[in-house]
Amino acid sequence: YVLIYLKRGKTWLIKAGGSKLHTHVGYLNLDDLVGKKYGETIKTSLDEEMSILEPTTQDFIAKSHRGTQIIYPKDAGLITTKMNVHSGTKVVEVGTGSGAFTTHLANLVRPDGHVYSYDIREDCIKLAEGNLRRAGLSEFVTLTMMDAKDEINIRDADAAMIDVGDPWSVVETVWKTLKGGGLLSSLSPTMNQVEKITIKLEESGFTDIESVELLLRNIEARYGKTRPAMRMIGHTAYLTFARKIIHNIKS
Amino acid sequence: YVLIYLKRGKTWLIKAGGSKLHTHVGYLNLDDLVGKKYGETIKTSLDEEMSILEPTTQDFIAKSHRGTQIIYPKDAGLITTKMNVHSGTKVVEVGTGSGAFTTHLANLVRPDGHVYSYDIREDCIKLAEGNLRRAGLSEFVTLTMMDAKDEINIRDADAAMIDVGDPWSVVETVWKTLKGGGLLSSLSPTMNQVEKITIKLEESGFTDIESVELLLRNIEARYGKTRPAMRMIGHTAYLTFARKIIHNIKS
Amino acid sequence: YVLIYLKRGKTWLIKAGGSKLHTHVGYLNLDDLVGKKYGETIKTSLDEEMSILEPTTQDFIAKSHRGTQIIYPKDAGLITTKMNVHSGTKVVEVGTGSGAFTTHLANLVRPDGHVYSYDIREDCIKLAEGNLRRAGLSEFVTLTMMDAKDEINIRDADAAMIDVGDPWSVVETVWKTLKGGGLLSSLSPTMNQVEKITIKLEESGFTDIESVELLLRNIEARYGKTRPAMRMIGHTAYLTFARKIIHNIKS
Amino acid sequence: YVLIYLKRGKTWLIKAGGSKLHTHVGYLNLDDLVGKKYGETIKTSLDEEMSILEPTTQDFIAKSHRGTQIIYPKDAGLITTKMNVHSGTKVVEVGTGSGAFTTHLANLVRPDGHVYSYDIREDCIKLAEGNLRRAGLSEFVTLTMMDAKDEINIRDADAAMIDVGDPWSVVETVWKTLKGGGLLSSLSPTMNQVEKITIKLEESGFTDIESVELLLRNIEARYGKTRPAMRMIGHTAYLTFARKIIHNIKS
Repeated sequence: YVLIYLKRGKTWLIKAGGSKLHTHVGYLNLDDLVGKKYGETIKTSLDEEMSILEPTTQDFIAKSHRGTQIIYPKDAGLITTKMNVHSGTKVVEVGTGSGAFTTHLANLVRPDGHVYSYDIREDCIKLAEGNLRRAGLSEFVTLTMMDAKDEINIRDADAAMIDVGDPWSVVETVWKTLKGGGLLSSLSPTMNQVEKITIKLEESGFTDIESVELLLRNIEARYGKTRPAMRMIGHTAYLTFARKIIHNIKS
Repeated sequence: YVLIYLKRGKTWLIKAGGSKLHTHVGYLNLDDLVGKKYGETIKTSLDEEMSILEPTTQDFIAKSHRGTQIIYPKDAGLITTKMNVHSGTKVVEVGTGSGAFTTHLANLVRPDGHVYSYDIREDCIKLAEGNLRRAGLSEFVTLTMMDAKDEINIRDADAAMIDVGDPWSVVETVWKTLKGGGLLSSLSPTMNQVEKITIKLEESGFTDIESVELLLRNIEARYGKTRPAMRMIGHTAYLTFARKIIHNIKS
Repeated sequence: YVLIYLKRGKTWLIKAGGSKLHTHVGYLNLDDLVGKKYGETIKTSLDEEMSILEPTTQDFIAKSHRGTQIIYPKDAGLITTKMNVHSGTKVVEVGTGSGAFTTHLANLVRPDGHVYSYDIREDCIKLAEGNLRRAGLSEFVTLTMMDAKDEINIRDADAAMIDVGDPWSVVETVWKTLKGGGLLSSLSPTMNQVEKITIKLEESGFTDIESVELLLRNIEARYGKTRPAMRMIGHTAYLTFARKIIHNIKS
Repeated sequence: YVLIYLKRGKTWLIKAGGSKLHTHVGYLNLDDLVGKKYGETIKTSLDEEMSILEPTTQDFIAKSHRGTQIIYPKDAGLITTKMNVHSGTKVVEVGTGSGAFTTHLANLVRPDGHVYSYDIREDCIKLAEGNLRRAGLSEFVTLTMMDAKDEINIRDADAAMIDVGDPWSVVETVWKTLKGGGLLSSLSPTMNQVEKITIKLEESGFTDIESVELLLRNIEARYGKTRPAMRMIGHTAYLTFARKIIHNIKS
């Protein structure tokens, strides 16, 4: 796969070779890409220069087939940083969705870790399978159609991410799937949900509970006129973090 | 190492065994920690319960010895997500500082990747060495005292992070150190710096240049009273991202 | 009254003449202020220069005696702008508190308008009386100790401001006090309250209902180092606006 | 004038009587408005209900003819609150533009105060004249085509607002136009401008200098789903405030 870059917001994720890529500024012969290196440029039939880039995991995610809202890079980055996801980490994900965040997790845990992702919807599992295959990360993920409210068939997970509409309903099974001190994250669009899951976490053997939201503002840099962009995304989701504790201890 | 957690902002990063940990709510006999598992709790001499947690990389960073301002998790997470840092990535860092972000990078590139970090100050190199050793990540990092303006003695890096006061001054050597399509990030406290490095990047063979800032707001969740926290950090730094292109191409 | 200004956050609101003002940078003989004009400067016994300024309404508010949290200038300014408060406006305020917002309203409606402010607490009424007198605005305000849930004894108000913990409980009496098309504002610290009052407004004959929050960030301007301030207020309150409509119309 | 309100963002500012108002949900006979009161509703030919509202000053501003970007209510409200503009205030405005902020000022200073507004462009003066007339506020404003860099022919102004691209260039004439302790505001889209005017203010006899930006976020309130709106305005302008001092004082 190759990312053809014209300008911000005008990119194409394609395979080299075979046919033509038609754009509003002329077409590219994809055969011409063969033998080129990442970072080189190529011109369209209308003499417009495009860059040939190696797609990042976030590029695959941005271009993935989606059934649901995907998690933004600003949120994805903070979640995996707080959950300390790295090579070797064993992560549980409740709510596969289109597999966007699954892809982000798989990229970070490889080659020795693993992602166990659960969804109740078969179409989500299928969609995620395709997206993970395209990103080349399928082998690091086990997708399971199962209701995580009832059971999560994994023990001693290092971390668990919850992305469902009623996150409080899976807190107890997530507690069981995590190892002692294991790290939990949850993502919710409304403050009501934050309140409910926080109360549930407090009751269910979690500590170090905190919730945050991140606002990202683009800066438009131009000589003598640098300023924040006029438009921005005002809200994506609230993020909640916690750590599992084991209460039945006498010291 | 063990993280003893009393409440948000009241934590201790210590080694089990040996002496006592004195706190404002009584002392802990560190010998009592031996045989305990992460997630268990322990009581102080004044019967206050504390949690025994496995320190995350961010915990090591938060407790590191510092000479300079460290990069916040919100910024660190977005930078490594945008730079696609994962196991196996070869990363260059210009401006080691106290090694906080170096630690974050090392955590993500292990076991097969490597971080090459440069600083002109010997005290920073020494400080970073200690902090990396404590976090158990020294083997994934090569620290070099060298002025990156003159030369970066690495080629084909996947990504490069710049954290110096005059980032534009190292853009040319960073271009040389990166592979084609390689990913660059830079962090600057002022919008003036964003303007200067953006202009330099445009002139120096980079594309997909963008700058952003992230605002993190804590949410205080309590039954019926959930709201954003009254105080927040209003500014840490602006982040600039770009990708290297190779211009001398005829198509 | 005179505002003695040393630097941001170091000001004194005093009456000229009589005694001494003692500060950490020396004392001022207040008799020396007599004959000075606003904008002039004066030196303390330790030769520190201070400015003699005419207090604004916001200065009186900032220095008022308080029992409750006062409304910030950013919120106060938007509320009166949206409610179109100006000379001649007849405004109802439910929840006098310490009279800070009452003072802001009185300043804007004079000389021909009037503020009718209601509170159930006698201590609030007393506190507001003192604060209004000090700001010289008492004659434009009628303070009444009365529960606005039961009755607001004014008709045809141009605008009404609600600042109580359960704003939905007074929506019906506020509807009666407003003229057709009259403008309502309400201030609430939690999103839960915003939800409840919005639903109540929709049911009770209001249109053009909207809620917002304002974030204010200070900018620290210094040559070559201008940037946002590191700390900011992360939350004050949500503001809700609406206009009264009369439903029983056949067209 | 009457404001016909269908829903947020779908409003019409019209005169009652005469012709038809055609909309995408049917037409209104404007003769039918005669005899109606503010707050009543009316139905279109397609049986859609609309509200009949009294236009506020901000409605006139939002519907004004514009040549330039207008100042948002959030910024307008804070500026006049900080400048303590109320009935009787004598205000100077440098940069009339389309007269939007002039209208806001005129609304607040009437009936005894006055606004003196200056612009170097004849088309702006003409545009502002029309907008002020429509809002019924012409008598409280004197519009002058004059370069405020050279001279502002008013003395002892209570407050002055600067809205030009090079605000530092008028700081000296604004100092002369203000009374001692007089309040200055300036609005600038870039942080560079904030830096330049701050330095000029420090050199030119102003104190209590501060700069801020305001971010407004809409809250979408719906039962059980209340959350911030997904899109928001990320930037309008930075606001700078200061007070005039008279330096040549020996104490």
